Amino acid sequence: MDFSPSPRAADLTERVREFLTTEIEPVETQYHRDLEEQRRTGDPWQPLPVIEELKAKARERGLWNLFLPKEHAGEYAARFGTDGGEGLTNVDYAPIAELTGRSAIAPLVLNCNAPDTGNMEVLLRYGSEEQRREWLEPLLDGKIRSAFTMTEPGVASSDATNMEATAVLDGDEVVVNGRKWWSTGIGHPDCKILVFMGLTDPDADRHHRHSMVLVPRDAPGVEVVRMLDVMGLKDEPLGHGEVTFTDVRVPASNILKAPGAAFEIAQGRLGPGRVHHCMRLIGLAELALEQAIRRGTERTAFGKPLVNLGGNRERVADARIAIDQARLLVLNAAWKLDTGGSFNAISEVSQIKVAVPNMAQQVIDFAIQLHGGGGLADDFPLAAAWTSARSLRLADGPDEVHRGVVARFELAKYR
Amino acid sequence: MDFSPSPRAADLTERVREFLTTEIEPVETQYHRDLEEQRRTGDPWQPLPVIEELKAKARERGLWNLFLPKEHAGEYAARFGTDGGEGLTNVDYAPIAELTGRSAIAPLVLNCNAPDTGNMEVLLRYGSEEQRREWLEPLLDGKIRSAFTMTEPGVASSDATNMEATAVLDGDEVVVNGRKWWSTGIGHPDCKILVFMGLTDPDADRHHRHSMVLVPRDAPGVEVVRMLDVMGLKDEPLGHGEVTFTDVRVPASNILKAPGAAFEIAQGRLGPGRVHHCMRLIGLAELALEQAIRRGTERTAFGKPLVNLGGNRERVADARIAIDQARLLVLNAAWKLDTGGSFNAISEVSQIKVAVPNMAQQVIDFAIQLHGGGGLADDFPLAAAWTSARSLRLADGPDEVHRGVVARFELAKYR
Amino acid sequence: MDFSPSPRAADLTERVREFLTTEIEPVETQYHRDLEEQRRTGDPWQPLPVIEELKAKARERGLWNLFLPKEHAGEYAARFGTDGGEGLTNVDYAPIAELTGRSAIAPLVLNCNAPDTGNMEVLLRYGSEEQRREWLEPLLDGKIRSAFTMTEPGVASSDATNMEATAVLDGDEVVVNGRKWWSTGIGHPDCKILVFMGLTDPDADRHHRHSMVLVPRDAPGVEVVRMLDVMGLKDEPLGHGEVTFTDVRVPASNILKAPGAAFEIAQGRLGPGRVHHCMRLIGLAELALEQAIRRGTERTAFGKPLVNLGGNRERVADARIAIDQARLLVLNAAWKLDTGGSFNAISEVSQIKVAVPNMAQQVIDFAIQLHGGGGLADDFPLAAAWTSARSLRLADGPDEVHRGVVARFELAKYR
Amino acid sequence: MDFSPSPRAADLTERVREFLTTEIEPVETQYHRDLEEQRRTGDPWQPLPVIEELKAKARERGLWNLFLPKEHAGEYAARFGTDGGEGLTNVDYAPIAELTGRSAIAPLVLNCNAPDTGNMEVLLRYGSEEQRREWLEPLLDGKIRSAFTMTEPGVASSDATNMEATAVLDGDEVVVNGRKWWSTGIGHPDCKILVFMGLTDPDADRHHRHSMVLVPRDAPGVEVVRMLDVMGLKDEPLGHGEVTFTDVRVPASNILKAPGAAFEIAQGRLGPGRVHHCMRLIGLAELALEQAIRRGTERTAFGKPLVNLGGNRERVADARIAIDQARLLVLNAAWKLDTGGSFNAISEVSQIKVAVPNMAQQVIDFAIQLHGGGGLADDFPLAAAWTSARSLRLADGPDEVHRGVVARFELAKYR
Repeated sequence: MDFSPSPRAADLTERVREFLTTEIEPVETQYHRDLEEQRRTGDPWQPLPVIEELKAKARERGLWNLFLPKEHAGEYAARFGTDGGEGLTNVDYAPIAELTGRSAIAPLVLNCNAPDTGNMEVLLRYGSEEQRREWLEPLLDGKIRSAFTMTEPGVASSDATNMEATAVLDGDEVVVNGRKWWSTGIGHPDCKILVFMGLTDPDADRHHRHSMVLVPRDAPGVEVVRMLDVMGLKDEPLGHGEVTFTDVRVPASNILKAPGAAFEIAQGRLGPGRVHHCMRLIGLAELALEQAIRRGTERTAFGKPLVNLGGNRERVADARIAIDQARLLVLNAAWKLDTGGSFNAISEVSQIKVAVPNMAQQVIDFAIQLHGGGGLADDFPLAAAWTSARSLRLADGPDEVHRGVVARFELAKYR
Repeated sequence: MDFSPSPRAADLTERVREFLTTEIEPVETQYHRDLEEQRRTGDPWQPLPVIEELKAKARERGLWNLFLPKEHAGEYAARFGTDGGEGLTNVDYAPIAELTGRSAIAPLVLNCNAPDTGNMEVLLRYGSEEQRREWLEPLLDGKIRSAFTMTEPGVASSDATNMEATAVLDGDEVVVNGRKWWSTGIGHPDCKILVFMGLTDPDADRHHRHSMVLVPRDAPGVEVVRMLDVMGLKDEPLGHGEVTFTDVRVPASNILKAPGAAFEIAQGRLGPGRVHHCMRLIGLAELALEQAIRRGTERTAFGKPLVNLGGNRERVADARIAIDQARLLVLNAAWKLDTGGSFNAISEVSQIKVAVPNMAQQVIDFAIQLHGGGGLADDFPLAAAWTSARSLRLADGPDEVHRGVVARFELAKYR
Repeated sequence: MDFSPSPRAADLTERVREFLTTEIEPVETQYHRDLEEQRRTGDPWQPLPVIEELKAKARERGLWNLFLPKEHAGEYAARFGTDGGEGLTNVDYAPIAELTGRSAIAPLVLNCNAPDTGNMEVLLRYGSEEQRREWLEPLLDGKIRSAFTMTEPGVASSDATNMEATAVLDGDEVVVNGRKWWSTGIGHPDCKILVFMGLTDPDADRHHRHSMVLVPRDAPGVEVVRMLDVMGLKDEPLGHGEVTFTDVRVPASNILKAPGAAFEIAQGRLGPGRVHHCMRLIGLAELALEQAIRRGTERTAFGKPLVNLGGNRERVADARIAIDQARLLVLNAAWKLDTGGSFNAISEVSQIKVAVPNMAQQVIDFAIQLHGGGGLADDFPLAAAWTSARSLRLADGPDEVHRGVVARFELAKYR
Repeated sequence: MDFSPSPRAADLTERVREFLTTEIEPVETQYHRDLEEQRRTGDPWQPLPVIEELKAKARERGLWNLFLPKEHAGEYAARFGTDGGEGLTNVDYAPIAELTGRSAIAPLVLNCNAPDTGNMEVLLRYGSEEQRREWLEPLLDGKIRSAFTMTEPGVASSDATNMEATAVLDGDEVVVNGRKWWSTGIGHPDCKILVFMGLTDPDADRHHRHSMVLVPRDAPGVEVVRMLDVMGLKDEPLGHGEVTFTDVRVPASNILKAPGAAFEIAQGRLGPGRVHHCMRLIGLAELALEQAIRRGTERTAFGKPLVNLGGNRERVADARIAIDQARLLVLNAAWKLDTGGSFNAISEVSQIKVAVPNMAQQVIDFAIQLHGGGGLADDFPLAAAWTSARSLRLADGPDEVHRGVVARFELAKYR
């Protein structure tokens, strides 16, 4: 059980830390102000130029595509800029992802943001050579973006077999129909490719009925009906869309791996995605605790710094304990993934998917409380941080489903 | 300890229920859609016409200004439309306020919304005849709106003695300076009058230094710097503003009661205001539980209605228990206010101010979870409901301050 | 919703309070010391003489059998000493039971302790004239005691239909077999009668298969196998026994009401029993909070009274809020019972059965923590109080079963 | 951050596991029955012979004194039987201690129980050669036992500077006076030596006023006033005593290290002691979860195994997550101790001292609930396990004090 990063990863971590401190933090406040301005007066889905400038700098320094997993990165790490020329283990990536979680834009800037990382990993692992050339390479290059369209508004999507969308083979084409929502990333003008999941063969067994299909954003019949709010936020420039697919026809070669392979691919895709989300949430919780303490020591009430009033110091201690426990659990899941692969860590990934967002939500709530009214406004990143943690109690599977997975593994020990 | 409403109040409650069912609920979904449209394409601070139409209907039926307290309503209840011609006790008003809490617009429609009710009550109790004629009557008439400007961005306002704004007498004028925020209601074009609190005499004792001043919205030197987000929401058409006062001069006769009386007035104002907030939150929590159960029985996953999965039924039970306990505690505070006045119920008001928003937050969180992604979007009133409950853990005093009040009363029993 | 006690009940409450203060509290510490001594050197099941002395005083003052319910007390209230000559409503009895809950011996002294009150009520409601003469009258007289034998060690008794004991009719006799445990009261030498529940007719419908049978403690075949510990305590002088019944034969006239009526009787018996437990737990929680505050103000650490350190004052406030909410919920259940009978309050009784023991457990835990090591020892009544609250999360139905009942009623509203 | 045990430690762990399975578990139920019998009919403080038999077996197999820390064990590990002849790191010892935590007698049998391990470590680190020969060697040999007398009944001992006991130098003697309680181990007839802490020089600075003195159990003036209950349990054969010291005179050479060194020694002693307690509690929580699942799958109610009812599977998942997080936090503290010594891990030790007992308490509570009434009785080790977890929220410093330590370190980062 060795959670130490390799020397190369430790070096990359320090360089990411420096990049955040010197390049991102100084511009982030202004970024949010400009975005707010654009919301009021322009098109908030038009990305601000600073992002592309930062992307260029990050790439130049080799802090690019660091998410690429050691076991699947292959030639791509070297070709697309990751310093050192090869992918990282999950344990190696953990402290880097944690750092990027402190910033609303760092994941984007380092080409390490959801859902693109998950989609790139899908293409790496399951994409044909042609699919990789057409979609993976520009994604790794940061030239285009992608979305994942799985969840549906009409059914309880926590049970994926409820899915109503279809992907029906018709000669050498596949015909795609259905309504999806929470398609993250679809608001960005660079979003060019959608990973779609739908029912292909209703007679196959429960977990071999569905296919994953690559659907170009501009294919006829694809319509973004609306962009969704998450607790009042739209998360520009990526956003979350509701999308209809009406008789969308794409070549059958756009199917990933093979017809009926969607559950297998989804499982492989969601595992690392969940782990990355959790790593970033650790960073967000750390940031919230840091801000809570700074505010709590600077402001006074009733003659004392806020942090010394009532139970606040106890809450600082509880936050420290909760964050450290959560980080260790994430490292443990990462280590299990590294040493035994996805099937070695199903329960562990579900464990962190339950534990980390709940922890982060609680720590951020405390930070908000110490900031008073300001904590609710957009003067601080806390309201958005809270929303992010809250939404991850539903995204990629609700708490309840993941608790069910953990319990299933636990009970199986006694059979 | 009699929590039964009077027959007249019971009748009014039923009539409010019917009004909600037949007049408000049928138009509320469209109202939110129109407001969202106006946000995208117009000025969301321009109230939608349906509000004025509903106000006219409510007034016609005597469901108007029902908040008016029996002990202070005087002639006004009869003059301004409350059916029966007199005010209600707190116990009587509780079930009515609870019902209005189920709707985002009902309080406005019945002229029973914060902060206007609190400001009207201040004018009733402390306003001079002239102040009442100029400001109270049009407020009771629903012709103008008001704001309360107390909290400041620069200091921890949980300790009101931290306040930095000033209200300095200069001959027969009072000169007002300072920066306030979370001035609810200031976004509405009908907002014409601000109740301002500032330091008048730094040499007086701690609780007699500040004055309340009536400042017309259009007085030179009053500027709304920005409208604040609450967890991403702007709460149109009232909204919450940050306001600067720069050498604003108003006649000294605009001071409420007398110079130095602000703490006394604030105490009297905030008590009932907190109770009304709590009453409405009970209604909001009931609505959330109702929606949770409806969604949980309609949608299925893994072959069962959602509500029958895992711990969901236990959470339904916990929600029922939590709501009922909270409602009883609110009724208890109302009854203490009715039987002994504000000073009889200081601890009780603080108790509900802690208990109710926390309870509501938890019940609504459960309802969101049962709605999946939809619970976070604006398709359901749940995200806004959650934000409302969360913000009331800070507004009108943070949880921690109210716990401190309760503890102080508790310890005093043993001295 | 009127929770005010009648003037007579208010007067009785004050007299009970005075009796506790002047007669019970002064001897209670010595009582516990004597009992501890007897545990070490004698037979702890032999009741200390002070109990009978106090019983005589209580009876003399009319503070006797106050539990007798208004609707079923009939002539017995007058004949057996209750001052005023008639039973009390549940709302009337609540503050009295709360007071007795502060003392480990008061319920016994006032002839108001479980399980005797429940058994007396069963006899009142369902007993034949002969059964009442033989068993009810000496119980009301405080001359004998009783036990209730329902739960079984071999099955999950939370589902009463799991029950394996039998009560088989054989001519004019009924033959009783089975193993029961948690038979409270069976350790007392005055325990003369057991209320036994067993299967009579396996072919009847699920809720008409079982009978309640009065089994004399000294009937051949009845054996107390052992006395059980509850978290290390034996709760002398009543205690909790494991009892075997081996071919015990009693006259068929010992069946309560009729063969097959056990579920109906159990439901009627357990409702008020649960409410009384909850009323007493409110008193115990109040006592714990009182002791927490006293200890917390008397002892100092790091230069301050303990209660002013860290989050302790917040916990005092939370305890006050939790107790008051729980008391109101208990009063609400009592009022529903009074106004509509048992079937009107099934959910409400389950609600308090969940809420009150959990609340009490938490408040007492806080009090223990403020007492340091002493809180765990028997120097204070806190360890025993905690155990009492904890065991009531299982006794008379586990939390989970009661949450299930509440949820069932809640969901039924939407069908 | 490497939490992997050395190969030697992994081997020892497996051998301890086998010893538990083959030697201890088979006799443990009978052990508890015999102890209960002895409580009723004999002297429960007289250890049952099986313990000495098991000790001989454990020693024979080298599973003896495994607690000995690598950095201080020196020659003693080889001389007193630890297989491999040297001490273990904290990371190495963690899985071994966890295993012993599953059994009420294993720590005793392996000579690894509190408070003797802590006292032996004190003698190792601070004892003179003579002190080590006289007391350490027979302790390592398992021939005698010891107690630690620090906490006092008269003051809040969470603040050690409150201490009232005295250790006054008088020529070449030291005179010891005071009243101590919660002196664990003092009930055992083999207890021969007490480590006493008292005030020596009131004029020295706050942390150099007190001395640690070795006081033989049979020194004139030492009296065990009574044995204390912990939630009704006496924890025989070690027990917890209240002890008075009245003008007890021992040679000044019995002072550990030097007069005034008590705080330094206490800090060094309590750190590892707390870590060992936490390691064992992890094992206890694992045992409780295992028993919960076994009971929950074997028993049925309402037609289903208990574990499949309501929220039980969710609670299984939460328990798994909580235990794993807690274990990782303990390993982290152990690793910090190993890599940087005590002063490197002050916050980490306090963190686990808060997190682990609270976690264990909650997991065990769930296991009790699934066992129904049986969970409260001594039929299962759950009631004793709960008491053990609960008492560790006070022993070696209450939660609140440890939260204070964690917060202090956290705030110091921002100064």
